[in-house]
Amino acid sequence: MSNTFHFPVQIYYEDTDFSGLVYHANYLKFFERAREHAIGREKLLHLWDAGIGFVVYKIELTYSEGAKFGDILDIRSTFELDGSYRLNFHQEAWLPDGKKAATKGLIQLVCIDGNGRLVPIPTDSLP
Amino acid sequence: MSNTFHFPVQIYYEDTDFSGLVYHANYLKFFERAREHAIGREKLLHLWDAGIGFVVYKIELTYSEGAKFGDILDIRSTFELDGSYRLNFHQEAWLPDGKKAATKGLIQLVCIDGNGRLVPIPTDSLP
Amino acid sequence: MSNTFHFPVQIYYEDTDFSGLVYHANYLKFFERAREHAIGREKLLHLWDAGIGFVVYKIELTYSEGAKFGDILDIRSTFELDGSYRLNFHQEAWLPDGKKAATKGLIQLVCIDGNGRLVPIPTDSLP
Amino acid sequence: MSNTFHFPVQIYYEDTDFSGLVYHANYLKFFERAREHAIGREKLLHLWDAGIGFVVYKIELTYSEGAKFGDILDIRSTFELDGSYRLNFHQEAWLPDGKKAATKGLIQLVCIDGNGRLVPIPTDSLP
Repeated sequence: MSNTFHFPVQIYYEDTDFSGLVYHANYLKFFERAREHAIGREKLLHLWDAGIGFVVYKIELTYSEGAKFGDILDIRSTFELDGSYRLNFHQEAWLPDGKKAATKGLIQLVCIDGNGRLVPIPTDSLP
Repeated sequence: MSNTFHFPVQIYYEDTDFSGLVYHANYLKFFERAREHAIGREKLLHLWDAGIGFVVYKIELTYSEGAKFGDILDIRSTFELDGSYRLNFHQEAWLPDGKKAATKGLIQLVCIDGNGRLVPIPTDSLP
Repeated sequence: MSNTFHFPVQIYYEDTDFSGLVYHANYLKFFERAREHAIGREKLLHLWDAGIGFVVYKIELTYSEGAKFGDILDIRSTFELDGSYRLNFHQEAWLPDGKKAATKGLIQLVCIDGNGRLVPIPTDSLP
Repeated sequence: MSNTFHFPVQIYYEDTDFSGLVYHANYLKFFERAREHAIGREKLLHLWDAGIGFVVYKIELTYSEGAKFGDILDIRSTFELDGSYRLNFHQEAWLPDGKKAATKGLIQLVCIDGNGRLVPIPTDSLP
């Protein structure tokens, strides 16, 4: 298991819905932004130029508490290889004064080439 | 288990990302639109006026195939009560010529009142 | 000026923000969906296969009234060629009981080829 | 006219569409994030608690060049009062090596109270 990678996300108007809280699907955006920073923009662009992209294969999410406008979430991410073809990210969104994760989940990624075929996770793409 | 509720979703520019396929988080939007139609807009507005709202508690999703611009997905939804406090939606997105679901998942909902407290699923809100 | 093309848009959770109303940027999504239906999905896919795409060049929008969850907007669109290279869409979002457009605007489109060069609007792409 | 406020926006998967570039409506999100940082999260929350919110009234946008995945845009914002009731933000998105703004626009804001009535721009809300 990797070290924990921290990434801050501030909640803007666009992230909320009329319930007053963050729209549930948007945590997947926050988690992806954090993954891109954990892996690194340069590495992702380099892989993409080589015709390889990460694709989300499986998601499990549990929501415990809602975030609201102006909150600054701490997205905490760790990852581990699951065989040669799967990369598991364990990701949590923490409120500033949270005693547990407000939202947590498992995001399982695979890699595909330009023809949509599975390729092994390029381990040199990992921090 | 309820009957299967069908809801069409056409893929627009806004739904795709630069990979050429639908952005993974957007299936949660499609599934929610389908749930709102399955339950019914009038019932949801009526519940909301009574201070009760559905909230997503848990999500499990598996992605098998990507949809692209111009595709018209058939969102297939069934649901069942899981005790008094949980409503499980089984939802799938099918491509027009699909042999299996392109994306499928379980979306578990709970109901909360205006103070954020859990309340039983109002069964008269179900079709 | 073309005939008026009508396209309905129901407001879902995803469209609103914590103010209780539709997030301002989302009207651009509604307007684009309406344009895609006005031009036609088949024609757009055919143009795209030929390496030609519509691109938004200029936008003017005025917001008079907000829409909320459950509202069903009537998007009214007309268009006209502005020279050979510009296509002007005049678009409005009407609330069910509206006395004037809730949001209205001008969306000016151009066409580009695969190298990002301007090409004339393919007039056979217009209804 | 205020000083220029700079705000960086990195382009993620979620921001792009299948054309390979940023989806046109998303610049409005970037501009709003920049405005929220220019005015300040604390001030906006304080105003909201007092029942006052900023609302977008008018938008003019011109798109010159597209941004793509991995780009880091510099959002440049200046603002000026236009009478007592309107606040004009002049906003531009610059690519790293841009010779002119990739996207630029005018976003005109008004303030409303809890009953949706226009109130003067609270000038102590401005930096």
